[in-house]
Amino acid sequence: MNRTPVADLTDGQQIDQVFRAADKQLRVNRQGGKYILMRLSDKSGVIAAMMWNVDETMFESFQRGGYVHCHGRTQIHNGALQLIVTDIESIDESEVDVDDFERFDANESDRLMTRLGEILRGLRNAPLRQLAEVYLADENFVARFKKAAAAVSNHHAFPGGLLRHTVDMMELCQLVGPRYPQLDADLLTFGAFLHDLGKIEELSCDGEISYTDRGQLVGHIVIGVQMLGEKIADFEKNGEAFPAELRLHLEHMVVSHHGQIEFGSPKLPVMLESVTLHHIDNLDAKLWSYTAAIQTDVSGDGNWTNYTPSIGRKLWKKQS
Amino acid sequence: MNRTPVADLTDGQQIDQVFRAADKQLRVNRQGGKYILMRLSDKSGVIAAMMWNVDETMFESFQRGGYVHCHGRTQIHNGALQLIVTDIESIDESEVDVDDFERFDANESDRLMTRLGEILRGLRNAPLRQLAEVYLADENFVARFKKAAAAVSNHHAFPGGLLRHTVDMMELCQLVGPRYPQLDADLLTFGAFLHDLGKIEELSCDGEISYTDRGQLVGHIVIGVQMLGEKIADFEKNGEAFPAELRLHLEHMVVSHHGQIEFGSPKLPVMLESVTLHHIDNLDAKLWSYTAAIQTDVSGDGNWTNYTPSIGRKLWKKQS
Amino acid sequence: MNRTPVADLTDGQQIDQVFRAADKQLRVNRQGGKYILMRLSDKSGVIAAMMWNVDETMFESFQRGGYVHCHGRTQIHNGALQLIVTDIESIDESEVDVDDFERFDANESDRLMTRLGEILRGLRNAPLRQLAEVYLADENFVARFKKAAAAVSNHHAFPGGLLRHTVDMMELCQLVGPRYPQLDADLLTFGAFLHDLGKIEELSCDGEISYTDRGQLVGHIVIGVQMLGEKIADFEKNGEAFPAELRLHLEHMVVSHHGQIEFGSPKLPVMLESVTLHHIDNLDAKLWSYTAAIQTDVSGDGNWTNYTPSIGRKLWKKQS
Amino acid sequence: MNRTPVADLTDGQQIDQVFRAADKQLRVNRQGGKYILMRLSDKSGVIAAMMWNVDETMFESFQRGGYVHCHGRTQIHNGALQLIVTDIESIDESEVDVDDFERFDANESDRLMTRLGEILRGLRNAPLRQLAEVYLADENFVARFKKAAAAVSNHHAFPGGLLRHTVDMMELCQLVGPRYPQLDADLLTFGAFLHDLGKIEELSCDGEISYTDRGQLVGHIVIGVQMLGEKIADFEKNGEAFPAELRLHLEHMVVSHHGQIEFGSPKLPVMLESVTLHHIDNLDAKLWSYTAAIQTDVSGDGNWTNYTPSIGRKLWKKQS
Amino acid sequence: MNRTPVADLTDGQQIDQVFRAADKQLRVNRQGGKYILMRLSDKSGVIAAMMWNVDETMFESFQRGGYVHCHGRTQIHNGALQLIVTDIESIDESEVDVDDFERFDANESDRLMTRLGEILRGLRNAPLRQLAEVYLADENFVARFKKAAAAVSNHHAFPGGLLRHTVDMMELCQLVGPRYPQLDADLLTFGAFLHDLGKIEELSCDGEISYTDRGQLVGHIVIGVQMLGEKIADFEKNGEAFPAELRLHLEHMVVSHHGQIEFGSPKLPVMLESVTLHHIDNLDAKLWSYTAAIQTDVSGDGNWTNYTPSIGRKLWKKQS
Amino acid sequence: MNRTPVADLTDGQQIDQVFRAADKQLRVNRQGGKYILMRLSDKSGVIAAMMWNVDETMFESFQRGGYVHCHGRTQIHNGALQLIVTDIESIDESEVDVDDFERFDANESDRLMTRLGEILRGLRNAPLRQLAEVYLADENFVARFKKAAAAVSNHHAFPGGLLRHTVDMMELCQLVGPRYPQLDADLLTFGAFLHDLGKIEELSCDGEISYTDRGQLVGHIVIGVQMLGEKIADFEKNGEAFPAELRLHLEHMVVSHHGQIEFGSPKLPVMLESVTLHHIDNLDAKLWSYTAAIQTDVSGDGNWTNYTPSIGRKLWKKQS
Repeated sequence: MNRTPVADLTDGQQIDQVFRAADKQLRVNRQGGKYILMRLSDKSGVIAAMMWNVDETMFESFQRGGYVHCHGRTQIHNGALQLIVTDIESIDESEVDVDDFERFDANESDRLMTRLGEILRGLRNAPLRQLAEVYLADENFVARFKKAAAAVSNHHAFPGGLLRHTVDMMELCQLVGPRYPQLDADLLTFGAFLHDLGKIEELSCDGEISYTDRGQLVGHIVIGVQMLGEKIADFEKNGEAFPAELRLHLEHMVVSHHGQIEFGSPKLPVMLESVTLHHIDNLDAKLWSYTAAIQTDVSGDGNWTNYTPSIGRKLWKKQS
Repeated sequence: MNRTPVADLTDGQQIDQVFRAADKQLRVNRQGGKYILMRLSDKSGVIAAMMWNVDETMFESFQRGGYVHCHGRTQIHNGALQLIVTDIESIDESEVDVDDFERFDANESDRLMTRLGEILRGLRNAPLRQLAEVYLADENFVARFKKAAAAVSNHHAFPGGLLRHTVDMMELCQLVGPRYPQLDADLLTFGAFLHDLGKIEELSCDGEISYTDRGQLVGHIVIGVQMLGEKIADFEKNGEAFPAELRLHLEHMVVSHHGQIEFGSPKLPVMLESVTLHHIDNLDAKLWSYTAAIQTDVSGDGNWTNYTPSIGRKLWKKQS
Repeated sequence: MNRTPVADLTDGQQIDQVFRAADKQLRVNRQGGKYILMRLSDKSGVIAAMMWNVDETMFESFQRGGYVHCHGRTQIHNGALQLIVTDIESIDESEVDVDDFERFDANESDRLMTRLGEILRGLRNAPLRQLAEVYLADENFVARFKKAAAAVSNHHAFPGGLLRHTVDMMELCQLVGPRYPQLDADLLTFGAFLHDLGKIEELSCDGEISYTDRGQLVGHIVIGVQMLGEKIADFEKNGEAFPAELRLHLEHMVVSHHGQIEFGSPKLPVMLESVTLHHIDNLDAKLWSYTAAIQTDVSGDGNWTNYTPSIGRKLWKKQS
Repeated sequence: MNRTPVADLTDGQQIDQVFRAADKQLRVNRQGGKYILMRLSDKSGVIAAMMWNVDETMFESFQRGGYVHCHGRTQIHNGALQLIVTDIESIDESEVDVDDFERFDANESDRLMTRLGEILRGLRNAPLRQLAEVYLADENFVARFKKAAAAVSNHHAFPGGLLRHTVDMMELCQLVGPRYPQLDADLLTFGAFLHDLGKIEELSCDGEISYTDRGQLVGHIVIGVQMLGEKIADFEKNGEAFPAELRLHLEHMVVSHHGQIEFGSPKLPVMLESVTLHHIDNLDAKLWSYTAAIQTDVSGDGNWTNYTPSIGRKLWKKQS
Repeated sequence: MNRTPVADLTDGQQIDQVFRAADKQLRVNRQGGKYILMRLSDKSGVIAAMMWNVDETMFESFQRGGYVHCHGRTQIHNGALQLIVTDIESIDESEVDVDDFERFDANESDRLMTRLGEILRGLRNAPLRQLAEVYLADENFVARFKKAAAAVSNHHAFPGGLLRHTVDMMELCQLVGPRYPQLDADLLTFGAFLHDLGKIEELSCDGEISYTDRGQLVGHIVIGVQMLGEKIADFEKNGEAFPAELRLHLEHMVVSHHGQIEFGSPKLPVMLESVTLHHIDNLDAKLWSYTAAIQTDVSGDGNWTNYTPSIGRKLWKKQS
Repeated sequence: MNRTPVADLTDGQQIDQVFRAADKQLRVNRQGGKYILMRLSDKSGVIAAMMWNVDETMFESFQRGGYVHCHGRTQIHNGALQLIVTDIESIDESEVDVDDFERFDANESDRLMTRLGEILRGLRNAPLRQLAEVYLADENFVARFKKAAAAVSNHHAFPGGLLRHTVDMMELCQLVGPRYPQLDADLLTFGAFLHDLGKIEELSCDGEISYTDRGQLVGHIVIGVQMLGEKIADFEKNGEAFPAELRLHLEHMVVSHHGQIEFGSPKLPVMLESVTLHHIDNLDAKLWSYTAAIQTDVSGDGNWTNYTPSIGRKLWKKQS
């Protein structure tokens, strides 16, 4: 089946092909009429789509994150292309060419996971090294970590983004830590490994990245501490106790890494390592999101991006 | 041994009796001289004390929270009575009349714990009732809960204060919950029970109330979630799974009860019950601390307390 | 005349029937063309309507809050139904079936007013009881109180909402007050009665709820104090002076009930009763608005409402 | 009786003379001992004084703001002179030379009140002119206005300060108003007259300036609106109604003059005149308090004052 | 060529005439299609315009701020008139009647510049008078000052607005300064002259007012200090040194005039003159922008403007 | 002359030796008596000192930062040692052994300056390399840079601290820059060199570190831009223009390095390099001040420092 990538769709085009249903909502007018508002995607992009006059059976007939065969027609509305769907049918993953839809770069994640393992296994602190092995031996954890995103819409908001952010931070810790003799570089690096792991449970990457119930009710900081508790329990199954104070330090690295109470850390960083971790997290996240704002900017003004509300400024984008 | 209660000490009095060492700090002048700054207490009050020209051996010779026999002399400094200690010796609890020193009201805590049990056992939600039994069956938990404080210096800052605050809130929940049919009153009441339990580990009540290492590094909100996890694990040991969604709701009640991110809750309340819990917590805590500010006020102005910085205002104290 | 309720209107329908003109604005394009933007309502709902190419005579020919007979046609714009009016004519209330338009539940308001009277007459404080009688004897006040709203768009934003909010708070005060012996429960309950009465003058309920000039220039807190002054003057007409200190306390309850300066109270609560009143107000208002956000949510996601900007979060809406 | 002015007292001096008791507090040590902390003043200054080992009868034997004959001795404590009182006796105003104690400049207040009357009688708006006459005909009002302070410790914190601030602002309004044709200069000037009149009731100038109960419970903004209501009632006693909209505007000028909600105005300024009034108030108050900070500064650094916490900065004080 | 002014354009009109290209952006759909979004202006107003399916050559074929001959058709979209351009061609200024396009009032600017010169030459401080001559002798400076705007979208956002704001403030300084003997009125007035001169370089008035690169990277406060440095260097070329302390004072007036750190002043005002300058700036800017909000308001509600987000309120607009 | 180092002084010691007058203030009691409050220092520490009953001649007889021979006696006041001076005499530097007083480590500053030169000369960007040579060729600049402090009381508050902070940041830039290919590492590193150079003029290191008039009136950010302007003028003296855009970028690095408006940067960072510079500055400054808080902490609690108000927390200080 020969399909047109989303990025190549144009106005007034008849559509008869497969998309991924990245998001779907059943909307109701005050007048009682129902329609489905969808976001249909493939690897090349995403397009808003509407299907009018539907009922709940129709809405339930396909899954968020699943594949759908659509008939309809594109149109331009307010200067943006959208798709009016007249017919939609759920189809099985086996019937689609998954390469058309997958934005996740498995090779890159494999490479990063290998690098992450090297760093962790190179730590001098034995309990941390052994605890790392507990994490790395958990295949389900590793598989989910590889595909996790670091955010819904902020920095590293793509499948694999959490791993990328984590490894970049660990590498920075390896550079910065030794510059300050007062820092325990192993604790710092292990903190970078741990700090956002709760996002594996906080965010769902099926379809569009979105919060899970657990993510919204409990949040990745507390989840990360819970996950650490499970891994330490596994560690201790072979009879050796994990050092109690080190456990508090690891929990503290996770709990305080947002740096300030008003950014969602229930405790301020009170160790030199947690202070440093917060700043390195901040630097890597800001650089990623600002770079992305520059790369995706479409304004015609050669030197400056459009004003980006989430950043509160325009950015200089001209190549020197 | 006939001792003078702290509240009855006067200026220029020779001292030769036992105190409790509520707090002790080894201080160092820039000139290198060391002295001990202590707070010595009995049931009737607390007095600041200094011992000059000491060494670390002296400082280590008695414990914070332990009993000490002191020689010295009182004096007034800046209008406040203090004690200059010339000799100090640690003595065993067996040698003192504990009744002279204990502010904790065991009978009141027993009464409150009984009331707490009644309320929990009266819930209609079976898993919550059974989970309550797991908590109540843990004798160590019950014993520590009875003596725990709710704060170092804010509301309910005394041994037994956490239990008092918890039961008062649960009773309010029993009154307010049924007024709003949209609320799950059982979840609300159980949330009141759980919300501050992490303070049992966050605060130490030996000597003066103070933060534990775990309290400062991790904080009572995360500790409370960890404790809940242990109790649910106990619950599930007899083979029955605790309802997964209910667990998230309980965790959420703990995580969000400060009501706003900048007050230390890593997630905002997003359930009607967690919103209500936050407001009831706020009401009970504010009323307690404002009432205490009025009761302890020593200003001679009949209608108004002195300005209380932690409250940001003077309070009307005249009895109508 | 057989009219279609607003809630049953559909796309492309010819309209020839009566509406209530809930709101009207004369808008001017930069190009100088004028049009009327209206909100037309009946009991079942409200619909946006436009009438193009009008002059000021046309705009002045009907009243905000009055009844109008309209010709026109419905259409869907940006997914929402709207009405393009081609002809509009003011008609007298005598010509319409008021039952089609009235959202106000007079029976409920009668019931609540009776309850309010019971509570006030049950107070033990004689001057407060007598002052209550002055309010209740003012028929104009009672009539306007019954129909008043508590807000334009926040909590209890409907005719009768102020009374509902007031009685709910007074009932809470009756429950909470006796739990804290340090509180004067009568003062607390009377404060709940008084706290928002200024909204009777601050808001107009003709047509859509909106601010009066006095409401915008002076505000309900100051108006409430002014109203209290008038009622105390009436009280004193029979020769007895109202207790001076009690008057200050009542004024303070009104002035401080927003709880913080930045929320519009020119003075902080400095009495235990005013502190309590603020928290009870906050609890009832928040529960109402959060419940309304859940009830009116139209998102198709079973567990969560859409993000509500005024609340700053999504709410859990699944029934447990 | 030959007395030494407070400003001329030195260390180690025997005291046997009259002071004014500017402030008095009965303080209690935890040890139960009571002492009186006083501030004793005359025209030349104020000195802190303590009287040890007193009872409540002693404390009640003289009045705040009254005259007392004291025996005692001066001493330097922490580099400041204080007075240890051994005997104190209340004496009648008739027995003292009031000129030794009065900081209030009656001539200056008379001059300013005359100027204020000229400005008000020069307004072109007839109802405002007539309303001004109602205020000026109230002898009690005029007498209290002349002696009122504008603040406890901020700007214009002295008897007569309110009048000075008011007239200075009215003169500025006379200059600034005509520069902006869009302003109603009469409304602006009358707003300057009204804006702080509530302080006459908010602050007491007997002894040290302090808040009255009414001031703390209700605040000068609401009091000012209440006073305006009384004066308008007087105005209308001769049968003529005061213009309703103008009344709202005057109330609004008072209510909004702090300029922002968080500064204690329950409504924002929404008229050009109230916006202007706020800025002129701000300018005059800031200039007064900064000038006072420079004049009273005692630091030895020729160019800069000490850091002033209420202002958040050091000020340049060198004469150019 | 007979052209229709922008203010007189109506729906469905064929267009074949010249506009000024006030702004232009090249926009890209996700689908890769490019279009130009323009704002086309003449003296009478501005209209949004779109040209679909363009390439970069087309976009580069005319300049922002230049003149263009357009073919196309007007249409109403969301109630606002816009222009769909089908053909666009850059034309030279010599071919247009500049009077049709120029909003700048040269006569008014000449008048204001004369007045500014009078004030500066009337100062008693000789070095300030001489420094003023250096500025006024710089023809390029004078020419650019006359046409500069004071803001992009806030107060005085039009060519000539900076001069208007500057002279209005200087006149206020001449009135207010002498009212306060503690002020150096010359320094105050010269500060008003200097305070916003950096905006001449910060903003570009070609086409729509917009920030220059230097404006966005460095900002008018720092630019103003740089400009002052250049002028003082010119001053000193004839061998006389400018007084060093006075230079610091002038720099301080520029640096601190926003009044608070969070408003962009890197230093707080610490001189009475800089405090006063800030308040006068604030008053003039606020009055201008509030007056403009009233004058341009198009709501049909006689007493109130629409809510203006930048001001955070509705304004009373009824003429008393 | 055999002197006792400040760190070795004890209570009740007769003093007859030389100190450095780190700070001096002439204080005046309300009673008109004058005294000098001094801080006397040598390399080992600093001690507060008072001289009573002085006149201005005495105060002027020695210089802040100069050497003085003092007679007097030590005493303990409020637990801190102080010196009551009875006689003081200014003496010339030639008469003292400067080694007793100098905290500045000239060798370390030489080493750091060499390293700084290496880094700057290793940049690939030719104009930056040449501009660096202009700075390095200015001997006065180099000499003052070597001795400058980075703050009065915050991080790196010692002579030589600015150089230490600058070089540490440049080294971090050398490590971090290459990790992010989107960064211009040369611009980043040069920005680190420039960012705080204005502090050379903002702070005076004679005696105690303190602000200069220029520092308080203008501030180091603007001064840094002024210094850059002078160096670029020197650069251009040999006929070559410095690249205009690069100049704006350098100015922007200085102007924006505090990262947020409310921290004193008049412009936000809008380049990836300025964003990065801010984070690296923050990291190095925070680590330094937190490490210093740990090192200088004197509390006897083994795990935690005392609460440090400037940091808003206690810090974990136990060595793991």
